[in-house]
Amino acid sequence: MGSLFGRLLRVQTWGESHGPAIGCVVDGCPAGIPLSEADVQPQLDRRRPGRSRLASARAETDRVQILSGVHQGRTLGTPISLWIPNVDAKSKDYDDFKDVYRPSHADFTYDLKHGIRDWRGGGRASARETAARVAAAGVAEKVLLRASKCRIVAYVLSVGTIRAARFPVRISRTVVDRNDVRCPDPRAARLMEEAIDGARREGDSLGGVVELRVTNVPPGLGEPVFDKLEADLAKAMLSLPATKGFEIGSGFAGTRMKGSEHNDPFVMRKGRIRTEKNDSGGVQGGISNGEEIILRVAFKPTATVRKPQRTVDRTGRERILSVKGRHDACVVPRAVVLVEAMAALVLADHWLLNRATGRI
Amino acid sequence: MGSLFGRLLRVQTWGESHGPAIGCVVDGCPAGIPLSEADVQPQLDRRRPGRSRLASARAETDRVQILSGVHQGRTLGTPISLWIPNVDAKSKDYDDFKDVYRPSHADFTYDLKHGIRDWRGGGRASARETAARVAAAGVAEKVLLRASKCRIVAYVLSVGTIRAARFPVRISRTVVDRNDVRCPDPRAARLMEEAIDGARREGDSLGGVVELRVTNVPPGLGEPVFDKLEADLAKAMLSLPATKGFEIGSGFAGTRMKGSEHNDPFVMRKGRIRTEKNDSGGVQGGISNGEEIILRVAFKPTATVRKPQRTVDRTGRERILSVKGRHDACVVPRAVVLVEAMAALVLADHWLLNRATGRI
Amino acid sequence: MGSLFGRLLRVQTWGESHGPAIGCVVDGCPAGIPLSEADVQPQLDRRRPGRSRLASARAETDRVQILSGVHQGRTLGTPISLWIPNVDAKSKDYDDFKDVYRPSHADFTYDLKHGIRDWRGGGRASARETAARVAAAGVAEKVLLRASKCRIVAYVLSVGTIRAARFPVRISRTVVDRNDVRCPDPRAARLMEEAIDGARREGDSLGGVVELRVTNVPPGLGEPVFDKLEADLAKAMLSLPATKGFEIGSGFAGTRMKGSEHNDPFVMRKGRIRTEKNDSGGVQGGISNGEEIILRVAFKPTATVRKPQRTVDRTGRERILSVKGRHDACVVPRAVVLVEAMAALVLADHWLLNRATGRI
Amino acid sequence: MGSLFGRLLRVQTWGESHGPAIGCVVDGCPAGIPLSEADVQPQLDRRRPGRSRLASARAETDRVQILSGVHQGRTLGTPISLWIPNVDAKSKDYDDFKDVYRPSHADFTYDLKHGIRDWRGGGRASARETAARVAAAGVAEKVLLRASKCRIVAYVLSVGTIRAARFPVRISRTVVDRNDVRCPDPRAARLMEEAIDGARREGDSLGGVVELRVTNVPPGLGEPVFDKLEADLAKAMLSLPATKGFEIGSGFAGTRMKGSEHNDPFVMRKGRIRTEKNDSGGVQGGISNGEEIILRVAFKPTATVRKPQRTVDRTGRERILSVKGRHDACVVPRAVVLVEAMAALVLADHWLLNRATGRI
Repeated sequence: MGSLFGRLLRVQTWGESHGPAIGCVVDGCPAGIPLSEADVQPQLDRRRPGRSRLASARAETDRVQILSGVHQGRTLGTPISLWIPNVDAKSKDYDDFKDVYRPSHADFTYDLKHGIRDWRGGGRASARETAARVAAAGVAEKVLLRASKCRIVAYVLSVGTIRAARFPVRISRTVVDRNDVRCPDPRAARLMEEAIDGARREGDSLGGVVELRVTNVPPGLGEPVFDKLEADLAKAMLSLPATKGFEIGSGFAGTRMKGSEHNDPFVMRKGRIRTEKNDSGGVQGGISNGEEIILRVAFKPTATVRKPQRTVDRTGRERILSVKGRHDACVVPRAVVLVEAMAALVLADHWLLNRATGRI
Repeated sequence: MGSLFGRLLRVQTWGESHGPAIGCVVDGCPAGIPLSEADVQPQLDRRRPGRSRLASARAETDRVQILSGVHQGRTLGTPISLWIPNVDAKSKDYDDFKDVYRPSHADFTYDLKHGIRDWRGGGRASARETAARVAAAGVAEKVLLRASKCRIVAYVLSVGTIRAARFPVRISRTVVDRNDVRCPDPRAARLMEEAIDGARREGDSLGGVVELRVTNVPPGLGEPVFDKLEADLAKAMLSLPATKGFEIGSGFAGTRMKGSEHNDPFVMRKGRIRTEKNDSGGVQGGISNGEEIILRVAFKPTATVRKPQRTVDRTGRERILSVKGRHDACVVPRAVVLVEAMAALVLADHWLLNRATGRI
Repeated sequence: MGSLFGRLLRVQTWGESHGPAIGCVVDGCPAGIPLSEADVQPQLDRRRPGRSRLASARAETDRVQILSGVHQGRTLGTPISLWIPNVDAKSKDYDDFKDVYRPSHADFTYDLKHGIRDWRGGGRASARETAARVAAAGVAEKVLLRASKCRIVAYVLSVGTIRAARFPVRISRTVVDRNDVRCPDPRAARLMEEAIDGARREGDSLGGVVELRVTNVPPGLGEPVFDKLEADLAKAMLSLPATKGFEIGSGFAGTRMKGSEHNDPFVMRKGRIRTEKNDSGGVQGGISNGEEIILRVAFKPTATVRKPQRTVDRTGRERILSVKGRHDACVVPRAVVLVEAMAALVLADHWLLNRATGRI
Repeated sequence: MGSLFGRLLRVQTWGESHGPAIGCVVDGCPAGIPLSEADVQPQLDRRRPGRSRLASARAETDRVQILSGVHQGRTLGTPISLWIPNVDAKSKDYDDFKDVYRPSHADFTYDLKHGIRDWRGGGRASARETAARVAAAGVAEKVLLRASKCRIVAYVLSVGTIRAARFPVRISRTVVDRNDVRCPDPRAARLMEEAIDGARREGDSLGGVVELRVTNVPPGLGEPVFDKLEADLAKAMLSLPATKGFEIGSGFAGTRMKGSEHNDPFVMRKGRIRTEKNDSGGVQGGISNGEEIILRVAFKPTATVRKPQRTVDRTGRERILSVKGRHDACVVPRAVVLVEAMAALVLADHWLLNRATGRI
């Protein structure tokens, strides 16, 4: 029952990979906001596999359609239903997994929990599900623009053991998209592409880390003690498929610093209270302080690999599985869009919350 | 408004550090479960500062009292109100912070959001707030025992740059408490204690990483796609004060592995489907698979340090702040109890959810 | 943002009257329940206008399609997306209401709240919205059948000043549908039909009362103190368009009784504790006691009438409005299906809640 | 688990009748609102039994204390914990009900659901629980005052078969309290008092109807389609003990009107759009239109009567029960305060919701 996200901007997603469509309903979007498919489609296009030779060959066209909640180009304050037909779904490719549990996939646990699963294309556990989140985030970004000129940009920080080292001064989605691997350090990007190509040839896969930066964050977002901004961001990111970790600001490295180094001194700049550095990552005490939000998300290597693997089937027989068909050798470049989407959903929801509960 | 946690086991906490008391209400606890203060007090005692020379000297007695929801030693299925009087609160110690923002504390953001804050002892942003969570977790652990012989044990993995290397085969809370720093590697523990003593002498502070292991986890917990078990665990942990990161199973290190290495092969053991290793950390596809849950939480060094720091006051004047009074040089040993508490709250809530929505 | 209903069986509806479609997503339905369109369509057919000469002439075909959450005829435990295309929507008929507020309609308040509204067919405020609830209730009824042989039957108790007096011993949906007005007292039914015909000829409309009876109710449903079963039923019914009142058991008439008359004596019947009569209406202390649930819902006369009415337009000019087009002179016979639908949603949700929080 | 009310102004109540205390936590109250016990105590005093010879003799002192969320007389934006010690609780009086189910009480259903209950004073099912709601409503009224000069006044419309007929032009709480029965028609009030005295002498009880009027309602409150303002009001009222019905505006009587009579014509008054009459009761399409909210709540006669009644005990043996001790013969005069309290909770919550989701 966990397909609902948010408290005021409530997103309900639905859909299996090989059903007729996937989609979402966004309830709670305030009225009067300009909205059309053109606001939602670009990030869906960025998410889509098959965009580059690095991604899987499945041609998901992912044309989104708005079915409700918008009238004459503006939101009505009523639920916005977004739908994306599933095309080019080849269920045949998945017949092998009907009875065999792919290691480190959701096959086994879904069966365990529900006693039934849609094995075609991974069903609900397919990464395809995330297209509905990206569509919803298109609405959330429009809501956020009412708050501030908030800019949400993610990029690939590392793939396998290769890590970006040099960053341009200003990183935008356009800059990020300059290479297929979506790493703003061109030198590292080339090495990453080679590594991904190598993994594909070996029938293996790679993981990596996505970094997110949000600038012009509205200050005051976050509801301590449980619904702290970083807590909701962590939940949002860990709800993405294949994630194993989250850190904000100094993160795990910060645990090795001393307090006197880690603390961000307050200074006055242009009459505003700012921090001189930003190991806090834009959040203090669970509330945004207006500085840049910086966070990182760890993605494990894709579970689906061509190399033979030991596993069991539904009857408990041990088997050797060798997965065929079209699969990404590294989903991290596409995950960039998902990280941006989840950040947009969290920030828009918290901005609405703060409108309600903030200073009267 | 964010002081409510959980969907079916709903915990509402309340209280400022220097008010008359703090407490919580636990709604949704099923009826008929044996419960008394004796079930809740032990973890409160473990959380309490002043237990060892490593912790601050404030003598919080933290005697919990159950005010409702229990009759003749058993839960009634009605809200359980738990309360802990605040004693030994010396507001004077905090007068300095009334107008000056302590760096990397919640002082500034609370003022920003609310236009008012209780500066005495940090008010609601004080770590004292977590005592109410620990009390609620005492109830949650009793609920979980109805599900399985679930054992929830956390310990200190690292302090500053010192990391535990050798672990005993079986780690229990008793084992963990054998030293003040709560690190089950005795050699590392000694070095950690020295490091903390050193930091205290310098008027500085240290951070660290807490690792959690849950054994005998009920399988099938987690509600994809958003309320995945690891997503709710991540939120729970990042809602704790001073946390900067979360990872489960292989975590960030897993991003440097190949898929063929990372995948956990399924095997049959004693007629049950198991994984041969556990890089998944006990959760696959957002649902517990019955293996041990392993996760880590990053705690930054405490923000309160004696060393002089640059900051500003409410009027925007730049100031030098030197914090006096009793403060922990390292909260990580105490955080062990908080990590256990949040895990208990998440697992008990998910177990109730699964009772409702799992297989009919 | 109020288009979400339920806590565990969560129904999110969406859609405007003259958009491409309306629909709903049902999240939280347990896995393994047989479900197909054939389970949902019959009540949609009963709800549909144009079934009889008493209803409006608009031919809503209302063909429901299941888009997700079902695999090989069984629910997956994932969100069930149901959609109903809008056909035969003649927006022209509504051009008059673009700028003029129809008295006692939602036109004015929607504009007031949102600053924008979809005037075509009433937009989101159209009774058409209820088709999505009926579709969701089809799922809820299947869930409830797992609990008990629960039978949910509503009928028309009164239309205008005419009230049913004699009831058959056993009332089923088939019995109720024996006449167009859905009143199980045939004599009263005839008078009601005449009254409705009369109102239509005069260009006026009539209201009425719908009575609901639920037999084989699972005992123990209801979560005091706020989420009492009758409280959630009251909310559900008052969320239906045109409702002005709700009563359960003895209702308003019960306020004129003495306690000694009103109390339902407990007696033993076939080894079970029963009540000798049922002025409680099947709920005591907010919890179902296993007796028949009896409640009544008041529907005001339809606001849309042909007779000229005084009103104002968006610019604040006073106007005379005379509504043309196809409209029901009395919606009460169709409302029977809506009352059944809301009861099913409440009972299924409470049954799931009770699975989670009831006796361990 | 149903002791939580509201979405943004979230009230969690707790406490059994004969435990050490009852109380509530109010989360979501915006910061900066002046608040002290003096804002909460007056309505608690009006609710208290023993105020007049019409009520039971139990001397509940009901002194409320604020434990958190307020600093230097203003709300902090953190949870407000309110507590009311239980004094003068004579559990002995209730020993008879330990094993015997009082007819039309919650004794049986609580046992049925939970397998355990606190029989002392009715435990959680005692009307004493409502004191915590009244305390929470004291906070809600302060929140509402930030929205408008909203005035919430309820009074007794009928007791048994006696109904008020003549009302003063302006009804305030002071006017209502001019007589013990809280009926603003003095002639009816006298008859009601006689009737209640009579019922008490006979060892019987009476019910009645409470009417509520809210003036200066902020327009735009209500979230269709499910969280309509009248729907949430209906739920709130039916969550009160002993309620059997709810109606708003024309209510059940409105079902006997024709549409052309029932519709409220729009007119211009002082440049504002108003309705000429108010059969809608201040809500249209689920949203407040700024007119007076008028609603009525039906209270059944108190279940506790001295007259001998047939019932059964826990073992299933049929018994004759004759209740001794101090009990109200008619709770309707006290219920006036509860109806006001629930209205305040609903309106304040909806006002916060509208701040978040209303026009940007």
